[in-house]
Formats: sequence, C-alpha cells, structure tokens
Amino acid sequence: MKPSSSSSSLLFRAVTTLLIIIIPSSHGHGAYDPAKPCKRLVLYFHDILFHGGAEPFNATSATVANATKLGNTNFGKLIVFDDPMTRDAHLLSTPVARAQGFYFYDMKSAFNAWFAYTLVFNSTEHQGTINVMGADTISAPTRDLSVVGGTGDFFMARGIATFRTDAALGDYYFRLEMDIKLYECY
Amino acid sequence: MKPSSSSSSLLFRAVTTLLIIIIPSSHGHGAYDPAKPCKRLVLYFHDILFHGGAEPFNATSATVANATKLGNTNFGKLIVFDDPMTRDAHLLSTPVARAQGFYFYDMKSAFNAWFAYTLVFNSTEHQGTINVMGADTISAPTRDLSVVGGTGDFFMARGIATFRTDAALGDYYFRLEMDIKLYECY
Amino acid sequence: MKPSSSSSSLLFRAVTTLLIIIIPSSHGHGAYDPAKPCKRLVLYFHDILFHGGAEPFNATSATVANATKLGNTNFGKLIVFDDPMTRDAHLLSTPVARAQGFYFYDMKSAFNAWFAYTLVFNSTEHQGTINVMGADTISAPTRDLSVVGGTGDFFMARGIATFRTDAALGDYYFRLEMDIKLYECY
Repeated sequence: MKPSSSSSSLLFRAVTTLLIIIIPSSHGHGAYDPAKPCKRLVLYFHDILFHGGAEPFNATSATVANATKLGNTNFGKLIVFDDPMTRDAHLLSTPVARAQGFYFYDMKSAFNAWFAYTLVFNSTEHQGTINVMGADTISAPTRDLSVVGGTGDFFMARGIATFRTDAALGDYYFRLEMDIKLYECY
Repeated sequence: MKPSSSSSSLLFRAVTTLLIIIIPSSHGHGAYDPAKPCKRLVLYFHDILFHGGAEPFNATSATVANATKLGNTNFGKLIVFDDPMTRDAHLLSTPVARAQGFYFYDMKSAFNAWFAYTLVFNSTEHQGTINVMGADTISAPTRDLSVVGGTGDFFMARGIATFRTDAALGDYYFRLEMDIKLYECY
Repeated sequence: MKPSSSSSSLLFRAVTTLLIIIIPSSHGHGAYDPAKPCKRLVLYFHDILFHGGAEPFNATSATVANATKLGNTNFGKLIVFDDPMTRDAHLLSTPVARAQGFYFYDMKSAFNAWFAYTLVFNSTEHQGTINVMGADTISAPTRDLSVVGGTGDFFMARGIATFRTDAALGDYYFRLEMDIKLYECY
C-alpha cells in the first residue's frame, strides 16, 4: 500500500518547512538577533598613561612608539596597556578582569584609534579570555568592535564589543564603557 | 490503525536525509563552498607612505617603527595607515570605505608583510565594519587573509580577503586589490 | 483519506526531535566539545632574538620597539618574528610551517606577553594559513589563545591554540609548544 497522498503532502510540507528554517541558520543567515546576545558583560576600561618619572595615577599603559609627523592628532602613536576592567565607572573598584593589548592612533585630521586586546578573567566568577579587535572611531557616540574568539568560560565566543567614551582627562586618563555582547556561546 | 510501513519508511528516509544534510553543517563541516560567498566586495586599497616634509601624494600612512638591522628587506618596519578603498583601481575615485590598521614587514630574505585592519564603511550604501588579519606573503600572486569579524551591515561576518598587488611605485605608493568574500552573513 | 493520527504523531515527534537537535547547534550552544577538536596540530615554535652584529643562532625575530620605563619586565617591548615551527622540540628539525607575526610584553610587575600571528603552511602536506591572537600569560603553566580564522587547507577554521613554554635561554631563545585545536573545519 502506498502512503496516502495527504500523508505524503504533510510530510513534504514538514520537511520543506524544516529545510527553510534550518538551512539558513546553519549557513549563518539570520541565526543571530543583535538584540539577544547569549551572554552580556558591561565593563569599564580604565587607561592611565605613563608619562615617565613619578606615577601620580599608577600608570597602566605606556607609549611604545611616538606619534609621527603626519597631521597633528597623534597619527601612529602606539600604546601598550594592561588596564583594569571594573563593573562600575569607579577607577578604584575591584577589577573583574584585565584588558591586555594595544591601541594606536590612525587619523591625521582627528583623533581615531584601533584596538586589539584580550580580556583576561581570573576570578571565582570567570576563568578565561575574550579576544577583541577593531576600529575605535572616537568621534562616533558609540562604535562596534569584533569579539573574534574566547577561551575558558568563553570558549569559542564571538560577538560585538560596543565602546562608549565615559570620561577623558587630557592624555593622562580615559575611561571607556565596553558593552560586550556574545552571540556564540558554548 | 498503524501507519503503513511505506509511510514510516518514507518518513524515516526523509528524517535520515535531513540529519545527513543538516547536522554536519551545524557542526561546521562542509557548510561553506569557497566558490559561493554570501557576500562579495572587490575593492582597491591605496597606500601612500608619508616621507616627511611636503606631501606630494597626500600621504595616508606613516612609519611608526623603522626597519631593524635583521636582513635588508625592511624586517620589523611598522606602518600605520588610514587608506582609501575604491571600487576601481583609480586612486582619485571616490572612496567607498577606509581601511584603518597597520602592517609590518617580517622576513629577512624577501619582502613579506603582516596586516591587521578594519574596513570602515560610512555611506548610504553600507554602514559598519569588516575586521581582517593575516599574512601578506607578497611573493605569491594572490594570498588569503582572514575576515575575523564584522559589525553593522556586516554583523558577525567571517570570510576570506584575497590580496593581489595591483601596482607599486617604489616605497611611496602601492595598490592592492582586496577581494572580500564573506561566508557568514547575518 | 486523512493520515492516521499515529502517523501524524510520529511525524510530529520526528520533526520536534529534529528541531531540538538542530536549532541549538545552529545557534552555537553546546556544539563543540573542547576535548574533541576536528583537527589537531602540535607544533614547536622557536624564537631566536636578534641582538645585532653577528648572529650566533641565526636570528628569526627582532625588537621593533624597546621596553618602556614602566616597570622592569620589558613593558612595551615589541618583537616581530618569522619563526620556524617544527613537529618535535629540536630547533634544527625541518620546519613544517612558519609563524609570522609579533608579540609584545605588557605587564609591569611580571613577564607577560600578547601575540598575533599567522601560521603559514607551504608544503605537500598542507597549504594555507591559521590566524591566532591572544594573551600569553607566561606565568601560567599553559594558556589558551584564539584561532580566529584560516585559509587554504584551513579554510574558515576556528579554535584554540594552547601555549606551553618548553625552553628558555635568557632573552636569546625560547621555545613554545603550540597545541592547535580546531573546532570548526570545512
């Protein structure tokens, strides 16, 4: 006996629906909703630039290469940092992670930067790292960088790190809010 | 009444087929065909190196650290850039994006480089960024770097950026064709 | 004739099961088992730092920016490398790949580094590249960095690179075991 046509039809429609639902996801189309990260961490990044001699603010970063003479907005100035990350905007709050990496200025007509760094978590709450890179187009109110990988508790993570400048004190100190949204969590 | 054996069999085969098709994709085996990116952008990268003093070509990049004395092919020379990206090979065409990042030379017996940068799109056509890193083995006719992330219109993108040297004028100017193929599009 | 209820029920259960199996994977939750990479390569990285003048060890890396005066553990010292990768721990074994990239020291109270580099394979066995970035928290027995992309035989790869210091000879030579585990293979 052959299956009835309506049973076959139902099966066909079910399979077709599945293919429509699933194949796009597995090929990566529309699988993630930017508004619904699988994990989110909002942290503050504190960068205290070393200026030599006594350290009034307990410096956490230092200039590795000076600005070039291309323009007058620090083009090429390269800074390495090991900066504390806190849950609130207070510099002296207990850090929940370190941000280790570098940034450099890369525009000759305005202040604009590029970052690559690792958030290193080493606490009872989190063990592991989150790796980030991208452009920090400082003039925009917020800017998105890419979370390109993670390890430990953040194994194989991917996502977006949204920067917002929260404070700046000359070239001695600045604070960024980093809104880390992961869309791949394992 | 039990379902007929042929109906069950058809269902079983359909489900099995689906599992074969879909599970490998969702685990990332064989999901992408290199010949079929979900998005492709072919753009030209123009790098005009600053040499100090007057700028005959309106410099877009500058040397941040000079070559070391290891070999004589610029080993260690580090350049930061904010370069225009155009749709055709003409330097003076209207840029459709900026490439912001750095490269350095890293071979002592030949010219060879390593790049990390962000393509910043800010037009009516595209808003967002594409993040790229990898080796530029200059002696090869083409070389592939990794697109490791994206934001905005390129949210969570991944793919390949294929470089081809299109022109070089001493160490003042070079032009690369960058064939950006995304295999993850959301 | 309508499909029998048990046939519909079977279909419903099959479809539901499929959705449960597949949708979580395609959203990236729990898809990867850290203990089961789809590809694994254990290689040794040999870094021989250039100190100027004669090269007793055939230098493969050079200092591009000197350490800053922040602390006394090389904070900010930036090294570019083109290092051989071998299958065993012997420096003179035939390299199976080159590691091209950079690292810098980034802690003022201890030796700690940050790496970004490309493994370049160009042999009959493998053609392609693997791109890696992350923190090398040297004081930990092992530390995980992210494999953020790949090309050629490693097209679209992602994974983890676990570092273990295997030997160190002053600041002339060090050797790292790099255990490269890919969880996305295509």
